[in-house]
Parts: sequence; structure tokens; C-alpha cells
Amino acid sequence: MEQLRDRLAELVDLEGLDMLATWDQLVMMPSDGAANRAHQLGTLTRVRHERATATEIGAWLDQLEERDLEGIDRDIVRLARRDWERARRVPTTLAAQRSSAHAEAQQCWQRARERDDFAEFAPALERNVELARAYGECLAEDGRTYDALLDDYDFGLRSEELRRLFATLAQELPRLVAAVQERARAPALPVPALAQRRAVDATLAKLGVERASWRVDVSAHPFTAWIGRGDTRLTTRYGDGEVESLLSSLHEFGHALYERQIDPALERTNLGHGTSMSIHESQSKLWENHVARSRAFADVLARELGETGFAVEPADLHATLVDVRPSLVRVAADPLTYPLHIILRFELELAMIGGDLSVRELPAAWNEGVRRLLGLEVPSDALGCLQDIHWAAGSFGYFPSYALGCLIAAQLWETLEAEIGPRTDDLRRGEVRAIEVWLGERVHRHGRRLDTIPLLEQATGHGLQTEPFLRYVSSLRA
Amino acid sequence: MEQLRDRLAELVDLEGLDMLATWDQLVMMPSDGAANRAHQLGTLTRVRHERATATEIGAWLDQLEERDLEGIDRDIVRLARRDWERARRVPTTLAAQRSSAHAEAQQCWQRARERDDFAEFAPALERNVELARAYGECLAEDGRTYDALLDDYDFGLRSEELRRLFATLAQELPRLVAAVQERARAPALPVPALAQRRAVDATLAKLGVERASWRVDVSAHPFTAWIGRGDTRLTTRYGDGEVESLLSSLHEFGHALYERQIDPALERTNLGHGTSMSIHESQSKLWENHVARSRAFADVLARELGETGFAVEPADLHATLVDVRPSLVRVAADPLTYPLHIILRFELELAMIGGDLSVRELPAAWNEGVRRLLGLEVPSDALGCLQDIHWAAGSFGYFPSYALGCLIAAQLWETLEAEIGPRTDDLRRGEVRAIEVWLGERVHRHGRRLDTIPLLEQATGHGLQTEPFLRYVSSLRA
Repeated sequence: MEQLRDRLAELVDLEGLDMLATWDQLVMMPSDGAANRAHQLGTLTRVRHERATATEIGAWLDQLEERDLEGIDRDIVRLARRDWERARRVPTTLAAQRSSAHAEAQQCWQRARERDDFAEFAPALERNVELARAYGECLAEDGRTYDALLDDYDFGLRSEELRRLFATLAQELPRLVAAVQERARAPALPVPALAQRRAVDATLAKLGVERASWRVDVSAHPFTAWIGRGDTRLTTRYGDGEVESLLSSLHEFGHALYERQIDPALERTNLGHGTSMSIHESQSKLWENHVARSRAFADVLARELGETGFAVEPADLHATLVDVRPSLVRVAADPLTYPLHIILRFELELAMIGGDLSVRELPAAWNEGVRRLLGLEVPSDALGCLQDIHWAAGSFGYFPSYALGCLIAAQLWETLEAEIGPRTDDLRRGEVRAIEVWLGERVHRHGRRLDTIPLLEQATGHGLQTEPFLRYVSSLRA
Repeated sequence: MEQLRDRLAELVDLEGLDMLATWDQLVMMPSDGAANRAHQLGTLTRVRHERATATEIGAWLDQLEERDLEGIDRDIVRLARRDWERARRVPTTLAAQRSSAHAEAQQCWQRARERDDFAEFAPALERNVELARAYGECLAEDGRTYDALLDDYDFGLRSEELRRLFATLAQELPRLVAAVQERARAPALPVPALAQRRAVDATLAKLGVERASWRVDVSAHPFTAWIGRGDTRLTTRYGDGEVESLLSSLHEFGHALYERQIDPALERTNLGHGTSMSIHESQSKLWENHVARSRAFADVLARELGETGFAVEPADLHATLVDVRPSLVRVAADPLTYPLHIILRFELELAMIGGDLSVRELPAAWNEGVRRLLGLEVPSDALGCLQDIHWAAGSFGYFPSYALGCLIAAQLWETLEAEIGPRTDDLRRGEVRAIEVWLGERVHRHGRRLDTIPLLEQATGHGLQTEPFLRYVSSLRA
């Protein structure tokens, strides 16, 4: 058991270094360092893969599975077996190829996006799709290549299940959009970038973000890196006249808090991270949709903006934050149309991996999908299929978790308020401690000990539901 | 050969990641991340050590040494044999212990230095000394533990040689100090930190530091990290009313330029770094002493400071930059007294490693040495034995290279000017291209293909000399 734990701790350390090198690449690295970083990440992945798939682990597991283990040790062995079996199916060279292709493609994507030039990105994306398919085929059972990719992010979920859930959303959401759109639009708020920055810093400080164990930086696409205990890094971006940073900073805070509240006993084991991307995304969406977009919390945000010299009425700020208008950019989407952005990406990546859509055809297919689902014309690929980093990073099968996150967040929030009472008064004062405690207890502390559905059932008494989310979006601006 | 090259490339990648994690620790990391980073660095060192000492490398070398290799391949094999033999003598666990002890000690040192509390640092330093001794004993021949540590930084140098060279300096320098001190002191220049920062950025830009492949940041102790091709990072620090940043930024630039001008054919091999710490330090000292401290270059620095609104006469600035006054802090020392700081540290670390001086006695011994060599009283450990990061980082045997660097820089500079003519006119205009080219050709491009002394002989026609340096310091403020 000690040998297994040592190896798992080593893998956690190497994973943290990978996250650091990736964070650095996106936030700090000079652009000419890209090729070198690709080598470094490739080597790191190869080394991790070799050590994660070593034959001796199988022998340790065989022995340990014969013992009557309990508690954490039992779960460590159970997950180690699952991870080892999956990792053994992927050749070391393929793992390294993927890692260095993804690093190069991200650099390429950044340039292509700046220049609005999809052709510059296309070869790298083609390579990523091929490698993702090859990877999925190593892992797939019954030829379900895409489901195998999905397992990396949400173990046990199936694309049929997603199709069903998404069909309900695709049916219900456009109706709600139409109803809400008849109302007057909220006025745009010309919040200067600097005011946002100060308000974001002050708001995060209220939630417990302090310099001794956090960093808040700027990157092209907001993300969170948990480098390890006492070292959490979130990023956002500040655009003049936009309010995105007020939402995305709380979104990333939700991811970060999840990792920080995992039971310390699971640290440096294979159980010490969030259990799945959909649960992770439920944590970010809970803070984005149910805290940052609440009428009560608008009092806090408006007050902090006021401190910077930008005066705004809380009610006006709230109206802007929940304003429903179909838009082109996913990360800036309102909570009602957001899942439609995901449904589009899910359709497209399913088709690309399945070989039914070539990379060359992607921009046209994207633009057609945006027309169909959101009723909008895409003026440029930069605002279309070049907007997200995920495919550049090789993360096929990741997008669905964003929509599931919205559903699960709503489900958790209803349960939370039913159990500890409405949060309105607390949120008006920026008091979130009770929320953090409830989430820590019901969701965070378990780490990977419970998979998505068992965790959800344990926390809410139900499996995946669409109703709480539909109730939430129906209530927007009511 | 291909297998060997692949392994060496992998080791270069892991070394680059180590440098990145170390840079991040000193420049970016939240302080609470220290324990976790220590784990990560420990794991990285253990993995590198295992892969650098693998049995198969010995088998590859046995085969390759029978072939009639030429050029780069021959040197790759020669150095791979040397490195492999040395690394094999160090147990993996000791290597990992050192790495994680050093990471923790650095964090501890930073706190102790801030609070001027040596006692807080002492246990970590004791541990570092013990581990350095254990490490040296693994490598030592004929019980020369300290020489074995020296080999890590300057292969082939011996402490007797250092004693001889340092004895000459200890005899000559105090006399020169006394002579120079009779002159009037240069007035202090109250340069604001912000003006320094802007002038440093502008001056570095003149030397070719551009954002696509460089970073310039702030850290407690200036240093340079070469993460890999196209990714060079130097740090400095800016104190109101100090001029240190004008010198230390050029000092670090010298280190960085060395790594950047190594023959690209040596990249991702075991030859692709600077050959030794003394040659490395000669490069930084050349830019610090012979460029930044030249009367001609003062024109450039004064002009850049003027641009920021801080008016200063070049002659006054120059007088301040070469002002000789025995001082407490090594990195702020003038070029004449600088080697005396090193002689002190060399004596003390020799005694600590030899077991003749306990860590508890260090502050008193330090203060006595400063009195004897520099004629000063040490008012606090923060300005005494806590001032340098090196022992916290476990770098025993590193300090001598700083003094050797001063000697070699003077030797190279005399040769350079004899061959391509005095640099005065160029430096007045901030034109350094010819210097960069000469250094690239005679020093940088060789990487590790030549050790310290052969490289020096090839570049200057002589081994280590003290005369050029003594001529240089005699000329200061002449």
C-alpha cells in the first residue's frame, strides 16, 4: 500500500508540474518559448504515462485487491485499478504525441484567433482530431470512440444520455428565449476595465481569496489552475464596457473552491481532485449563476464598483448580468442561452470524431448551427469556431460538462436553499460562508471517492434532472 | 546514438521544467504553496536522477565508446560518461531529499531574512549542510568533500588553486581599497525605483531584450532562468535611491546572452548549456564591470534615466557606479571589494562542510570575517549571513565562481579590446553588437564542449590570471 501511495503521490506531483507549465504557457511564457514548451510538456506526459502504466502497479493492485481494505485505502485501490487499466491501453508514444501536438496547437490557435484566420489553425486542429480519434479508439468499448473521450471528463456518462437531456433543453430553451426577448433589453454598462479589475479583486477578497495562497492573473481565456495545496491560480480578462469579468471571476472561484475543500486526507493520492468535469462545472456555474447573477449579490458588486468610482444601481447591474440576448460568444452567454452553445459544440465534435465532418467544413457547419440554435449570423471565425481553446488543447468530450454543470448547479442550489434556507439576506451582505460549508460537506470533501451520479444522488437525492435548471432560467428577470 | 540523444533531450526537458518551477517559486508562487512545491521539485529531481543514472545508459556508452565518433557526437558521449558516472554515485533518495530540503529552506530563508531572524533559518541550514556533506562524500576522491561540491559548478577546479588565487587577491585588494578610499566619495544618487525600472527596460531593449523571447521580473535576489529556446527570464529588484538595478540587470543579461548564443546544434543535448559557473559568472561580470561600469556606457544609462525625468550627469552616474566603499551586501559591492565578499563565503562554507564551523557559530564567524576583510561591523544578520540565497538553495561550492568570474571577465575583456579595438566609442552609443559577436564566437557557442581552463586558453591564450583583474580595478576612477 505504501508503494502504491508513493507512486500515486509522485504522479500527483508530476500532474501539478504539468498544470504549472500549462498555466505559465498561457499566462507568463514569452511566445517564442512555444516549441520548447511543447517538448517539455511532451516529455512530462511521456514520463507520467510510463510511471502510471508500469507493470509493477498491476502487481501491487493484484495483491491489494485480495486484502479486505476499508475506507480511503479501498477507494484508492479501486480508482487506481480503473486509471491503470485505462492508461495501459494508450501507447506511450501516442500520449506524448498528443501532449506536444496540443501545446503547439494552442500557440497556433492564439495566433489564428488574433488574426481571425481559421486556415492557420486548421492543420493543427486536423492533427488534434486524428490524435483524439486514435486515443478514443484505444479506450473504446463496442466502437464507442466518443464515449471513451467523454469518460476522461465524466466517467460513466454516455452520449445517448446527453442526447436525451440536450433534446429536452433544445425544445424548452428557445421558447423561454422568445418569451424573455419580448421584454426591454437591459442597458449596456460602460464599466472601465480598471474598475472591473478592482471590483473583482475586492469581491474575491470577500470570498477568501488572499495572496498567501491564491493568484489572480489575466489570460486570453479564463481558467483555473490548482498547482497544489496552498497554490490556487485563477485567471480572467477585463474588456472595457464588458461585465464578463464579474461573472467569470466567480465562475473560476467556484472551480478553485472545489479543489481547496477536498478532504486533506486525500491529498497527494489519486482521490484528491474533483471527481468529474460536470461536477466541477456545477461548482463554477453555481457561483456564476446562483451567486454572481442573483439580485442580492448585485448589491455587493455594485458597491465594489462604486468604490472604484463607477456608480451603478444594483438593480441595473443585475438586469445587465441576467439580460438574455442570444450572442456569439459562449463565455459571455447568458445563463438561458448558454446550453445552446454547448449543444452546438457537442454536435460538431461528435461529428468530427465520428468522421462525419471534416475540419475544412467546420466554419460553415458552425455558422449554420449558430443560425439554427441561436438565430444569429457569425461575422468572423474569431467570434465563431475559433473562440474556444478546448479543441486546440485536444479536449474533445469536455464541452458537454458545461451544460451538465448548469443543470447540476441548479439542482444543488435548490437542495441547498431547501436545507439551510434562502440565501438572499446573506448574499446581499456578501456573506457566503454557509454556502462554502454546505458545498464542502456535500460535494467537495469527497474528491474522487464518488463518481458524478452517486455524488449527485448523495447530495440531492436525485440523478440528473433538467427541471431545477428550467425553473431557474424561467425565473430570470421575473 | 539516437537512444542516447533521446534520453539526453528528455533530461534537458525535465531540467527546463525544474528551472521553470524554481523561477515560479521565486517570482510568482503564493507563499502557502511552498510545501507542495518542495514535493514537486523533490519528485522531479528523483525522476531525473533515476533516468540520468539508468543502467541502459552505461550499456549505450560502452558501445558508443568503441566507435570512432567525431565532432559533437564524440563530446556528447564524453560528457555523458562523466555525468553518468558522477550521478550514479548519488543515491536517488539523497538526491530527492536534497531537492525538497532546498525548496523548503529557501522559503524559510525568505521569511527569516524578512524578520532578520537567523534562528528561524538555522535548522534548515543545518539540514542543508548535512545533506551537502553527504552528497560531497558520495562523489569525493581522496576524501576531498568540498572539491567534489566544487566540481558541480566548475569541473576540474581544486580548492588549493582557489586558496592560491584568493591569497593574491587578499594581499593586493585591501591596499588598493585604502588608496582609493582617500579620494572623495561619489555623491549618492536618489534615483526613484520607477525611474530605474524604466531605464533598465529601455537599456535592456537596446541590447536586444524583446518580449517575444524574454521576461524581466522582480525577485528578492536577482537571477536568470533559461527555461529553453526562446524563453529567457531575468529578474532584478528596484530600491528607491539605489543604483543596483542598473548593474544587476546587465549582470543577469550577461548570463542570459551566454545561454542564448550557444550553438543551436547543441540544443537539447548534454552540451547545450554554459560550461561552468565561473565562465557563466565571467559573462555576467563582463557586462556588469566592463560595460555597465564603463565611463562610456554611463552616457547611455544617464540618457535613459533622463528620459524618465531623472536628470543626472553621466560623469556623476559613473562615479557612483564605480565608487569604492567597503559595504555589507555582496550584490551591491563595488568591483574592487567584491572578491573579498567571496573570500569570506569560501572560507565559511569550506569550514561548515569540513565540520570546523557549526551553523550556530555562523553569524559570529561571518561578522568576524567582515570585520577582518572589509573593516565593517555587521548590524544585523539580514545584512550579514542571511543576505544570499545560495546556502538556502543548497549551493555550496558555488560562491568561488563569482570571484573567478571577475578574473576571467577582465581577462576576456583585455583580449577582446586587443583584438577588435577599444569599445569606448561604441559603448557611448549603446552599440554592443561587436561585443556580442566576439563573445558568441570565442566563448558562448562552445557550450559544454570545452571545460573552464581549455575554454579560457582557447579564448585568451592563457590560463587563470589575476593581473588583468588587478589592472582593471586599479584603473577605477583613475
